[in-house]
Amino acid sequence: MRVEIVAVGTELLLGQIADTNSAWLGEQLALAGVDSHFHQAVGDNQARIVLALRTALSRSDAVIVCGGLGPTQDDITRESIAQVMNVPLVRDEELVEQIRKMFASRQRVMPENNLRQADVPVGASIIGQTRGTAPGLICPLGNKVIYAVPGVPHEMQEMFTRGILPDLRRRMAEQGDEAVIKSRVIRTWGASESALAEALADRVEELDHRGSDDGSTLTIAFLASGIEGIKVRLTARAPTEAQVDQMIAEEERQVRAVLAERLGDVVFGVDDQAMEHAVARLLVDSKLTLGLAESLTGGLIGARLVNVPGSSRWFRGCVVAYDSAVKHAILGVPPGPVVSAQAAEAMAVGARTALDSQIGLGITGVAGPDDQEGVRPGTVFVGIAPPEGEAFSRELHLPGDRDRVRQFAAISALDLLRRTLRGAPPQ
Amino acid sequence: MRVEIVAVGTELLLGQIADTNSAWLGEQLALAGVDSHFHQAVGDNQARIVLALRTALSRSDAVIVCGGLGPTQDDITRESIAQVMNVPLVRDEELVEQIRKMFASRQRVMPENNLRQADVPVGASIIGQTRGTAPGLICPLGNKVIYAVPGVPHEMQEMFTRGILPDLRRRMAEQGDEAVIKSRVIRTWGASESALAEALADRVEELDHRGSDDGSTLTIAFLASGIEGIKVRLTARAPTEAQVDQMIAEEERQVRAVLAERLGDVVFGVDDQAMEHAVARLLVDSKLTLGLAESLTGGLIGARLVNVPGSSRWFRGCVVAYDSAVKHAILGVPPGPVVSAQAAEAMAVGARTALDSQIGLGITGVAGPDDQEGVRPGTVFVGIAPPEGEAFSRELHLPGDRDRVRQFAAISALDLLRRTLRGAPPQ
Repeated sequence: MRVEIVAVGTELLLGQIADTNSAWLGEQLALAGVDSHFHQAVGDNQARIVLALRTALSRSDAVIVCGGLGPTQDDITRESIAQVMNVPLVRDEELVEQIRKMFASRQRVMPENNLRQADVPVGASIIGQTRGTAPGLICPLGNKVIYAVPGVPHEMQEMFTRGILPDLRRRMAEQGDEAVIKSRVIRTWGASESALAEALADRVEELDHRGSDDGSTLTIAFLASGIEGIKVRLTARAPTEAQVDQMIAEEERQVRAVLAERLGDVVFGVDDQAMEHAVARLLVDSKLTLGLAESLTGGLIGARLVNVPGSSRWFRGCVVAYDSAVKHAILGVPPGPVVSAQAAEAMAVGARTALDSQIGLGITGVAGPDDQEGVRPGTVFVGIAPPEGEAFSRELHLPGDRDRVRQFAAISALDLLRRTLRGAPPQ
Repeated sequence: MRVEIVAVGTELLLGQIADTNSAWLGEQLALAGVDSHFHQAVGDNQARIVLALRTALSRSDAVIVCGGLGPTQDDITRESIAQVMNVPLVRDEELVEQIRKMFASRQRVMPENNLRQADVPVGASIIGQTRGTAPGLICPLGNKVIYAVPGVPHEMQEMFTRGILPDLRRRMAEQGDEAVIKSRVIRTWGASESALAEALADRVEELDHRGSDDGSTLTIAFLASGIEGIKVRLTARAPTEAQVDQMIAEEERQVRAVLAERLGDVVFGVDDQAMEHAVARLLVDSKLTLGLAESLTGGLIGARLVNVPGSSRWFRGCVVAYDSAVKHAILGVPPGPVVSAQAAEAMAVGARTALDSQIGLGITGVAGPDDQEGVRPGTVFVGIAPPEGEAFSRELHLPGDRDRVRQFAAISALDLLRRTLRGAPPQ
């Protein structure tokens, strides 16, 4: 089953917004084991939408058209589909009633234009709205089909999952074309993409040459995600969900073992788990509270930590000592250079004291573009004051402009804290 | 002149990355007065790339194909173009030499595969590389043309500007099809999209019905950008750059005047100017220093402010008092509820004192998901301690989940500071 995505909207062609709907749909289709060989974007013009739909139908089994279902004169996806189907549009009285009710329930006057959203090509069925006013459509054309969904991302996503995916699965089952695809992302920090690739090269090769009786496949891909580290993505495809789950679990175990042996403690989470979630889990487990002292990052580390639900249990607060005088006054950093290992350690101890926490983390450095105290941009010192024992620090040299140096500094500092809580540094 | 963009890469279809290249190219083409009616994305498969290129050529005058020019066996854009042109690929000895030199200069061994990048369809000309190894191509087909550029964004952008745009302009001049298009984005905070639309309705209508002798047009569009406010986008098209600049300047003046009269001080910047830039400019102009006290935002406001170059001149620092005890101990907030107008004002005064600044900004509130001190999520208090006079505060009720409440709180606090520095609050 090949599905083509057609995104409708002049703003997409003008680059005023990036087409994230097609990316989301592409990912969902892949996860459902559906092939998608082409995407198109087209403006709000009926002749061109018709041409895009005909092109899509000529090379795919199904089309998902996204956008152009709103109430204004610009919204002409319904008319375009009716033209491709060669049928008239008919106003659906049940939809008219629903749209009237929705406006009434919000105590708003309904502009007459909104009733255009009740127009349905003859022969099409409706995917009801649960969030907005524009219904979706399922429009059969022989053994092919056009699905139409609104362009508002959360409406589109809900409607895809509820209305389109089951219909696609049914069609695939009829054709005996079913497979389950799942991915797992293993998230790493502290190793380069080439080091990861080298460590896993044997495994990748083995998978490439592995045959299977039932067409099941397993692949490993590397995705450099900049300030969020490098992701190792495992993707399994097999006839059943149980098989896929087992393949992924087994491969994750192997990949983790190889990485731990070859590169050390580089894996900090899976899928949507960010570095701050790893740190939070370790703090909760060890029943420790944290105080921060930031300088060049300006509050970025604190802002990441409070994104974790329940952070008030272990996060005491942060002193952003952007001006050197604040480092001395509130954190008790001794006089002298403030971009140094000593200053980072003193900041960590100062944060632990001033914020009355059990662990202190301090970070100081030069984001750029200019040198500071004769130190080059990208130079960063991270200090940690542990519950027991001496404070220690690490010196980092980070690439990129002002903003990237800050982002790299924040995640590097959190990673040092993570490794410390797992019992590794200091050396 | 109609140009179609074809993005090549299986990762685009799978949604592993969003297609930002097409958005960038779409914007650049629009600014150059070039129409773009369709975009396509296609995977790394020669038959499908050929089909996508033929489809594009059938409905556009020129095609920009982006990606698939790398050195690996997956990179088959060159072969696909040669097939569409119906010509062989020939290895260009000058390119071979350049690629060898680039590897030598980096003291790296060149994998033999890399010479594939020197293969050129007969009849095509080359857009030299300045950053990587993959050259671009200009491939004429009768009076149409395919341009090929690498998928690495900064290489693609440089090559588009240097190699493609001048060739497109030359072709447009030959056809007498030249125009200049420019946009200006007016950025607002504090008015709803419908309030902005209503305030500018007369102006939009007037522009819609305005004729012109020379085909020049001017449009107003509204773009809701969530946590960055609502943007009013002016787009002008005219035969010359001078005309376009004048149309934009005149319209901006009118729009600003209408908005100021109808909605007050809602415009904080234009184009890429974020709220923190507006605040920074006002602090520099008034020669005042700022100290922050954050709670629910966890350091987000500080992190935004230090993104402005030169912030060390006016930003003293921040106390993130996430735990109530820190509010009392470091900021001197009196005992009692910490989610209140009084607490926000005391935090502002405490920040001004503790950080030895001239202005203090304090923010406290409930990000959710649970109530705190019986106060509902989304409730936020912003306090300001000005250089002279009493501290004051505002109560906000913000929509969304934990993360959105924080983001809205941060920009709302900065906006209150901006309006205060411009002389407006307290009322």
